[in-house]
Amino acid sequence: MPAAHQSAYLDHAATTPMRPEAVEAMLPFLTVRYANPSGAHRMARDARRALDEARDEWAEMLGCAPGEVVFTSGGTESDNLAVFGAARRPDDPAAELTAHAGLVVCSAIEHHAVLDPTLALGGRTVAVDRTGRLDLDDLAAVLDQEARRHDAGEGPGVRLVSVMFANNETGAVQPVGEVAEVVRRHAPHAALHTDAVQGFCLADLSVAAAAADLVSLSAHKFGGPKGVGLLVVRPSVRLTPRQLGGGQERGHRPGTQDVAGIVAATVAGRLTAASRPAEVERLTKLRDRLVEGLLAVLDDAVETGVERVDGLADRSGRAPGIAHLCLGGVESEALLYLLEQAEVFASAASSCSSGAMEASHVLGAMGVPSEWAAGSLRLSLGWASTDAEVDHALAAIPPAVHQLRRFTL
Amino acid sequence: MPAAHQSAYLDHAATTPMRPEAVEAMLPFLTVRYANPSGAHRMARDARRALDEARDEWAEMLGCAPGEVVFTSGGTESDNLAVFGAARRPDDPAAELTAHAGLVVCSAIEHHAVLDPTLALGGRTVAVDRTGRLDLDDLAAVLDQEARRHDAGEGPGVRLVSVMFANNETGAVQPVGEVAEVVRRHAPHAALHTDAVQGFCLADLSVAAAAADLVSLSAHKFGGPKGVGLLVVRPSVRLTPRQLGGGQERGHRPGTQDVAGIVAATVAGRLTAASRPAEVERLTKLRDRLVEGLLAVLDDAVETGVERVDGLADRSGRAPGIAHLCLGGVESEALLYLLEQAEVFASAASSCSSGAMEASHVLGAMGVPSEWAAGSLRLSLGWASTDAEVDHALAAIPPAVHQLRRFTL
Repeated sequence: MPAAHQSAYLDHAATTPMRPEAVEAMLPFLTVRYANPSGAHRMARDARRALDEARDEWAEMLGCAPGEVVFTSGGTESDNLAVFGAARRPDDPAAELTAHAGLVVCSAIEHHAVLDPTLALGGRTVAVDRTGRLDLDDLAAVLDQEARRHDAGEGPGVRLVSVMFANNETGAVQPVGEVAEVVRRHAPHAALHTDAVQGFCLADLSVAAAAADLVSLSAHKFGGPKGVGLLVVRPSVRLTPRQLGGGQERGHRPGTQDVAGIVAATVAGRLTAASRPAEVERLTKLRDRLVEGLLAVLDDAVETGVERVDGLADRSGRAPGIAHLCLGGVESEALLYLLEQAEVFASAASSCSSGAMEASHVLGAMGVPSEWAAGSLRLSLGWASTDAEVDHALAAIPPAVHQLRRFTL
Repeated sequence: MPAAHQSAYLDHAATTPMRPEAVEAMLPFLTVRYANPSGAHRMARDARRALDEARDEWAEMLGCAPGEVVFTSGGTESDNLAVFGAARRPDDPAAELTAHAGLVVCSAIEHHAVLDPTLALGGRTVAVDRTGRLDLDDLAAVLDQEARRHDAGEGPGVRLVSVMFANNETGAVQPVGEVAEVVRRHAPHAALHTDAVQGFCLADLSVAAAAADLVSLSAHKFGGPKGVGLLVVRPSVRLTPRQLGGGQERGHRPGTQDVAGIVAATVAGRLTAASRPAEVERLTKLRDRLVEGLLAVLDDAVETGVERVDGLADRSGRAPGIAHLCLGGVESEALLYLLEQAEVFASAASSCSSGAMEASHVLGAMGVPSEWAAGSLRLSLGWASTDAEVDHALAAIPPAVHQLRRFTL
């Protein structure tokens, strides 16, 4: 047994520490190899070569052509570019100005970076079941209904369906392949986007997201730097850019590329891909030990979205790095405060809204009662997580919960 | 005299090397202080505090409130956010979807990150004179004309005027204060944006850009990292965000902030501001020596946009770090190639377009004949520039020009 760790960082779904190799790879581009990759001289070509190599490597990792890799400033930009960019008609020269957008349909549990653009465009959401998995029948029904409205001249027709690869709050993995089949059958002219920000650590997306026309990634979720994202744009999609300017990224996303960040993201991606099968196994065990250890000693606690049959949890459709509990008689905010006193760093839901905590739309869509959702706790593991951290968390979390419940009663 | 430098990086207007202190300041946030600033625990608050301190310091440097500082992914994003964000009506819930955009008017010499959004929105450009300075009479005439059209119900009215602080190709400094007066008089409901990407090194923007409602910066132009920009959004502007998501940056620009990059940008900004008066003097001398040295030995060469009276150049309205020459009988591309062989790294125009060289819209607007523009050479200096580099450039450039002209003749 390793010695008890002094702290536990259980917020990898919010962000991960950078892999040391990625930091190392970044440094030359912050110091000596600093040229603008769009320049016309040897130093610029050196930076451009690094960018090209990064693009080639991502194409290899994601199963696409290098020209289909668009570097962005992060997951939020990638998602916004996918939704707004695919919803508009690129053949409309005034696309920025006019209402010529097709309908977007997304799951009810998308990250706000997909959900909010979808709703801003007047789009629709599709239900999930109580495990947080997309309801494929509801998807088919929504697509059929919109097809009928379009045929009757009453609707713009569905141009994009967006279903995330794995949910950032609950870890529920979505059936992207099956979603693609439904889309091809019920909305053959629609493109499919998957926000795979929480997906790259858990699956080889060159296979698992092969059916998606657009795929979003964010480097800081797998040991890369913040401020770097990626959008795969397959040739099946004609994307209207969101930014206009110097023509970089084949015009899909102009602006001087963050070469250092992109190189670092690529190294982090390479290490993540190379260790993925072993890491999935390791994190699955860590997560199971963490959750089962907590459920064994805590009353009035459920693992959100996980069904149990004969006392055994079915976590087959869950991301290995994300566990979500709902704890009765506990306020998330108070619990997180006690946990940080005990050097456990976790979160209630996603950490995307600054300031006050809001009710989770994800838990709402899963039918989790609000009194349960109020006591939600997300514990997320990643490449830097250790056995000792799980030991520490198992020692620290139950007393904190008990303390709060004593206070409440 | 210092020994002759082995190379000369004369492309600071494209990008600058990072200041070592900025790299140093970045490292802790790439390694141990990695939390997501939107999180709910102590590690997250530590990152948020760093972000808040950066924001406070920028507010101080730029003469605005901390809440008016919006961090972005770079100059292109800042410019796009300013133009598209201010052109649309934020009180229109379907602003993303509908045509409710006001008219944008910009100078004819804006960077593509302003010019292209302006033209995409059906906006208008204002002429410059042969020195590259905005024609204030033309601005007033355009604003008056659009006011009349609006009053007659024939136009949307001007909602934004965008005039850059200093031009990135020629270094021509624009009269932002006078522009503001014209705008207040002729389009009192319009906001004023200035793309100050090339301005932060040369002027205290808390004074020099005080009249602008929106101010764009890019960190990699003053010793900060690529991938970090900033937009000042004064309360006079109601901005429609371009990205939707987790609510960061007061909703103006959601997405996890690149804390490391922002901290580094802030250190670079601090050092730039502290050394600005001395640097402006130093770079002015370096630039003058470089240009006069070249003009003294090269026939058939003009300094673009600079008038000479009795043989003396008037560079009062030029950014000290940017020199632009037009060389007869020379092709820019061939010259840049010869120069890089001699370890001189320069550019023809801006380095924003990947791939083939295009005719410069900036030189076109100044009335530079295309045969002269074809031989354009931008030599740009910055914080890392040395006397020895200017010596090296003075030794290397004339032979390269002569070699090309021999070849041409």
